[in-house]
Amino acid sequence: MPGGLDAFVALAERLAETSGPIARAYFRSGLTVEDKSDQTPVTAADKEAETAMRALIEGAYPTHGIIGEEYGSVRTDAEYVWVLDPIDGTRSFVAGLPMFGTLIALLRGGRPVVGVIDHPALGERWVGAAERPTLLNGKPVQTRDCASLTAATIYCTAPEMFEGAALEIFNRCRDDARVIRYGTDCYGYAMVASGFGDLVIEAGMSAYDYLPLVSVIDGAGGVITDWEGKALGPRSDGRVVASGDRRLHAEVLGRLSEAV
Amino acid sequence: MPGGLDAFVALAERLAETSGPIARAYFRSGLTVEDKSDQTPVTAADKEAETAMRALIEGAYPTHGIIGEEYGSVRTDAEYVWVLDPIDGTRSFVAGLPMFGTLIALLRGGRPVVGVIDHPALGERWVGAAERPTLLNGKPVQTRDCASLTAATIYCTAPEMFEGAALEIFNRCRDDARVIRYGTDCYGYAMVASGFGDLVIEAGMSAYDYLPLVSVIDGAGGVITDWEGKALGPRSDGRVVASGDRRLHAEVLGRLSEAV
Repeated sequence: MPGGLDAFVALAERLAETSGPIARAYFRSGLTVEDKSDQTPVTAADKEAETAMRALIEGAYPTHGIIGEEYGSVRTDAEYVWVLDPIDGTRSFVAGLPMFGTLIALLRGGRPVVGVIDHPALGERWVGAAERPTLLNGKPVQTRDCASLTAATIYCTAPEMFEGAALEIFNRCRDDARVIRYGTDCYGYAMVASGFGDLVIEAGMSAYDYLPLVSVIDGAGGVITDWEGKALGPRSDGRVVASGDRRLHAEVLGRLSEAV
Repeated sequence: MPGGLDAFVALAERLAETSGPIARAYFRSGLTVEDKSDQTPVTAADKEAETAMRALIEGAYPTHGIIGEEYGSVRTDAEYVWVLDPIDGTRSFVAGLPMFGTLIALLRGGRPVVGVIDHPALGERWVGAAERPTLLNGKPVQTRDCASLTAATIYCTAPEMFEGAALEIFNRCRDDARVIRYGTDCYGYAMVASGFGDLVIEAGMSAYDYLPLVSVIDGAGGVITDWEGKALGPRSDGRVVASGDRRLHAEVLGRLSEAV
């Protein structure tokens, strides 16, 4: 893939450049919110952006697979599979908050090799690729040191992600952390990649939510796994912990092991 | 005050224009975070911005009072008193999140007559003044209709703001609302003013946190009170409910009355 990776990264960026203007056009436009059966608000922007991105992939690499939030899966047994979440944080989007993002991954043999976290309303794009430094708007970023939870700034979209034993463990992590910030969606992972914070703990995520984060976090020097410490793949259980520092990741995995 | 209001609004905007570049210079700069006795992270930006704003007020209106988060109160018995919170959402600020804002109010006889919610990292400024339409970057904004909680998009900085009966009532509001978004600080009130969402419920706020919101919400057609429905003043108890629609405000006040 050495020769191919450049082309794949270029396509991933083109996908974000295509999706972004669509998202911005619908953002704060007063559009009608639909309900899916699971009550997740989903917008016309989601569908239009995914349609545009799928067309670009089909045009460039018709043998590649695609997994998308809105339009399902094709050729998932292909060597290369693209993963698309046109609007991660649809609740932020419909509430007028600019924290929503477009998430893009390329998997090779089920393993993420390219990841993009793009924030169309903020003008910030993180791009990660296997064995390369993660870039924010073209400039390398790095996670920061944070040896323990008591010194950590942590992020989580909402405490409602957790139930039972997991909620109790999360609450103890929150109480012991230096700072907790909610409402972050994919932006929390971008903050960890850039070294502005230290940890994200979340649950209930779908493959298109977490797979695009992997190359971004890895390429910035961080670590992202499920709650058992296993690498994330298309069939992970949706419980994710990402940290900028391996020591902090190990400490939090120890706490989370009671819930797995 | 008719002749004076224009001058007061102009000064309020100049305060925001002075504070904003200071906040931006320190944002994501890797500065050391200090701890106050109450463990709230506070930054050099806070202090430098408030110092600069106080100097402008002292120069323009040396008889006016000032209440600031960092440097306390002077002449609070004056007819006009300025209220300054250079960085509302210091936790967002230290976590790299652009949702923090600069809050400015002018009180006359204890009643807010000018309010500014300025977001230096987002380039968005809401300005409200007595009997005038609230402006976002110079353009009028309006709240939207939302007759009941089941249709509402609601905001809250963090559920940890509540305890006991108040937490139970908040949780029921959250469960009944259409969408809940956390992590918003003053941005949630700005979203309600612009009609992107419907309601904010919060508690534990200081006078410099809530007084600057009043003119912004009022001038956009919304309503903001304490949990008993009383107008907010310097001595309110820090429990705040803001809504774009009076019907929704009344419904939520009814629920909150169990907690007051």
